[in-house]
Amino acid sequence: MALKSFIEVSPDSHFPIQNLPFGIFKPEPASPPRPGVAIGDYVLDLSTISVSGIFDGPFLSGSDCFLQPNLNKFLALGRPAWKEARAKLQNLLSADVATLRDNPSLREKSLVPMSKVEMLLPIAIGDYTDFFSSMHHARNCGIMFRGPENAINPNWFQLPIAYHGRSSSIVVSGTEIIRPRGQGHPSGNSPPYFGPSRKLDFELEMAAVVGPGNELGKPVDVNEAGDHIFGLVLMNDWSEIFKHGNTCLSGPFLGKSFGTTISPWIVTLDALEPFACNSPKQDPQPLPYLAEKISKNYDISLEVQIKPAGQEDSCVVTRSNFNHLYWTVTQQLAHHTINGCNLRPGDLLGTGTISGPEPESYGCLLELTWNGQKSLSLKGATRRFLEDGDEVIISGCSKGDGYNVGFGTCTGKILPSP
Amino acid sequence: MALKSFIEVSPDSHFPIQNLPFGIFKPEPASPPRPGVAIGDYVLDLSTISVSGIFDGPFLSGSDCFLQPNLNKFLALGRPAWKEARAKLQNLLSADVATLRDNPSLREKSLVPMSKVEMLLPIAIGDYTDFFSSMHHARNCGIMFRGPENAINPNWFQLPIAYHGRSSSIVVSGTEIIRPRGQGHPSGNSPPYFGPSRKLDFELEMAAVVGPGNELGKPVDVNEAGDHIFGLVLMNDWSEIFKHGNTCLSGPFLGKSFGTTISPWIVTLDALEPFACNSPKQDPQPLPYLAEKISKNYDISLEVQIKPAGQEDSCVVTRSNFNHLYWTVTQQLAHHTINGCNLRPGDLLGTGTISGPEPESYGCLLELTWNGQKSLSLKGATRRFLEDGDEVIISGCSKGDGYNVGFGTCTGKILPSP
Repeated sequence: MALKSFIEVSPDSHFPIQNLPFGIFKPEPASPPRPGVAIGDYVLDLSTISVSGIFDGPFLSGSDCFLQPNLNKFLALGRPAWKEARAKLQNLLSADVATLRDNPSLREKSLVPMSKVEMLLPIAIGDYTDFFSSMHHARNCGIMFRGPENAINPNWFQLPIAYHGRSSSIVVSGTEIIRPRGQGHPSGNSPPYFGPSRKLDFELEMAAVVGPGNELGKPVDVNEAGDHIFGLVLMNDWSEIFKHGNTCLSGPFLGKSFGTTISPWIVTLDALEPFACNSPKQDPQPLPYLAEKISKNYDISLEVQIKPAGQEDSCVVTRSNFNHLYWTVTQQLAHHTINGCNLRPGDLLGTGTISGPEPESYGCLLELTWNGQKSLSLKGATRRFLEDGDEVIISGCSKGDGYNVGFGTCTGKILPSP
Repeated sequence: MALKSFIEVSPDSHFPIQNLPFGIFKPEPASPPRPGVAIGDYVLDLSTISVSGIFDGPFLSGSDCFLQPNLNKFLALGRPAWKEARAKLQNLLSADVATLRDNPSLREKSLVPMSKVEMLLPIAIGDYTDFFSSMHHARNCGIMFRGPENAINPNWFQLPIAYHGRSSSIVVSGTEIIRPRGQGHPSGNSPPYFGPSRKLDFELEMAAVVGPGNELGKPVDVNEAGDHIFGLVLMNDWSEIFKHGNTCLSGPFLGKSFGTTISPWIVTLDALEPFACNSPKQDPQPLPYLAEKISKNYDISLEVQIKPAGQEDSCVVTRSNFNHLYWTVTQQLAHHTINGCNLRPGDLLGTGTISGPEPESYGCLLELTWNGQKSLSLKGATRRFLEDGDEVIISGCSKGDGYNVGFGTCTGKILPSP
C-alpha cells in the first residue's frame, strides 16, 4: 500500500512523502535559518519538530543537528542517523499517524507554505570539486577544440577526471548572476580583448553532497563510498567559454568562479533508491580501487529551459538524464580520496556537464550550438550564447509509480557586467 | 632609536618587536585554541590581553575577535584594526612601558614559552588558490615538459595564471605527510601503474592571507588590493609529479591534494614594509586592471633544507627569495576577482614555486634534479625525489638593520603509503 501523507500532495508534485529532501530556510525574513524538509507545497520546520522531542531514536535524540544554520552537523552523523530521520519523518507525515496530523498548534508552528519562505544554501561548502563524467560531453568538447581524431584523451577512461572549483561563489537557486569580465587571447601583437564575456553559457550538472568525511591519508574504499554521500542537488556550472591552450596547470579558473548555482533541496540517496539503474559498461575495466561490486546510476530526467530577456515564456532547450554519466558518484568519491585527500561533510562533488548521446540531450550551449556555429530558436528569439536578462531554469525529476521524486528547480538570471 | 622589548630577544631571533606575527595556539593540550603573537621565545596570549581590557581603541575595544579559535574575525576587520592592534602590542611589549612589563600576574597569564605550546592552523581557509608567479619556475617546467621552444606560453605574461587548490588538506607545520598512491600513465595496452608515488616533491612557496573580502560580482581594484591582504606565510605545496598531457581541464588535482603545509605565524605586511622592493619589470605591460600605481615586492630570503631519513643533520638544498616573483600579490588578488569572484577572510593565495634564475635557487626537486636526471648529494645520502622518512624544512627571513623579521619554519616529514 503506497505511503500517503495527511498533507495534500498533487500527483505531479516533486515533494511527496516518498521524497522528503532536506534544505535550509527562513520562515520570515528576520528569522534565523534552520533545517526543513519539503512536503507538497509546505516546508516542515525541523527545528520546531526537534525541540518538541519527536526525534527520540538512538542517533538523533538529544542532538542539536536540526538547530543549526546549515545541514553539516546532520550530514556528519552518517547514514544510520539519516535513516532514523527519514523513518521518523515518514511516520510523522503519514496520513495514518496522529502525532502531527491531529496537533493543530504543532502544525501551526512547523508547517510553513513553501511560497512564503526564503531558501538558503543548505550546506557550508568546505571544498567543491567538479568532475567531467559524461563521455558525450567530453567527446563533443574534444571534437570542437582538438579535432575528431583526438576527441577524448585515453586517460579519460582510466580515471574520473576532476578539478578543484571555487567554493565561495556557490549560490542558491534564484540568485542573479553577473556577466563576468575577462581577458581574451592575445592575437598577434595586439593586447588581448578585455571586457564583458562574449560567450556565457550554462552547464547542466548535478552534484553529490558529502556526508561523513575521511581522515587525511586514509582513502575511502569504493564499496563503502555510498555511505559518504547524503544526496544530490541540481547544479548550473555557469561558464565563460575559454580555452587555455596547452597550459595544463591553469585549469578552469576565472571561467567558472564568477558564480555556480545549486538547487535548495538535497534529495537523499534513500529517496532515489527506487530509481537506481545500471551504469554504462566501463571499457577498459577500471583499476581495482575503482571496481565497485555494485555499480549504481540513477534514472533522473533533467530539463533546461531558457526564458529569453523580455519574453514571457520559457523554451525547453535540452532534455537529458543523470544516467548518461559514465563514472558513478561513488567512483568519483573514491577516486577523490585515493591519494589520501580528506573530504568533509558538506563538500560538493559536481558531475560535470550531463550530455547524452543525441543533440537534443546536450547539456550546454557550447554543444547545442556547436561553439556558436548554429543558433537555437526560442519562440521569437534566437540564441547562440546567453544574453543579459536571460533566465536559465534547470529542473530534474524521477518518475515513479504514482509519484515523482523531484529536485524542484535551479534558476538564475543574467545581469549585465557593471 | 630602535624599538626594543622588555622581553629578551636575541639578535638573530625571527620574532623581535618589529615583527609581531599572529598565530593560533594552545598553551596546554586541553586548552581551547586562541590567538597569539610571537615575541622572542614567547607567545603573547591575545585572549588574556583582550579580556584585561588593554585593547581600548576605536576598532578593537569591546571586540571578541581575539577570543575566537581562528583569526578570521580579526582579519575581517581590515587594516585600520590591524594597525591599531600592532600599535597597541608594540606599546605593550616595549621596554619603556610599564603596563605589562611591571604586572607579574598579567605576565604570568599572558606570556607562554614558545617551546611549550602547540601551534594550530591560524585561519579557517574557505578557498585556497595557487598561482604560478615565478617566471623561472614556469620556464624550467616548460623546458622539461614541452621543450625549449615552447618553454613559456605567451599567455603567462598576460595574466597571473592560477588554479583552485584543495582547502581541506592544508595542515600546519609539523604535520606528517603520507606518501600518496595514485595512477601512472597508461603505456601501450598495459593498465597504468597504481601504487605509491614514485616522484614526490616539495615546493617552496609563500602564501598571502586574505583579510576583508569582496562581494560576488564586485572586483577589487588593483590599487586597493593591498588592504585586502593581512600578511604572508611560508608554504610547502607538496607534489606528486604528474603530467596530464594536453588535458587542460584536469589541472593539478590528485597530485597536490594529499597535503599542503603552511607555517603557523602570519607575518603582517606592516612588518614587511621596510623590506618592500621593486618587482621585476613586466613585459608586455599588463592590461589596465593589473597596472598598479605602486608595484611592491618584498625582500624575503628563503631556504629549504632536507634531513634525509635516518640522518642527524639536514642539508641546504636551495636558497631563493620572494622577490624573484614576476607577479605581485596585489596583482594576483586583483586578477582573482576581476570576473566578480568573491574572496573571503582567511582565503589563501599561494605564489607558486619560488625559483630564482640560478640553479642554486630552484624551488623544487623537479627543477633541482632536472626531472630526476641529476641527483643531489646530501652528506652521505643522494636524492632525486623525496624518500620515506625524509624531513623538509623551509625557513624564511627578512634581514633588517640590527633585527630580523622572520617566518619561523614550515616543516613536514614523509611517512610511507599505508
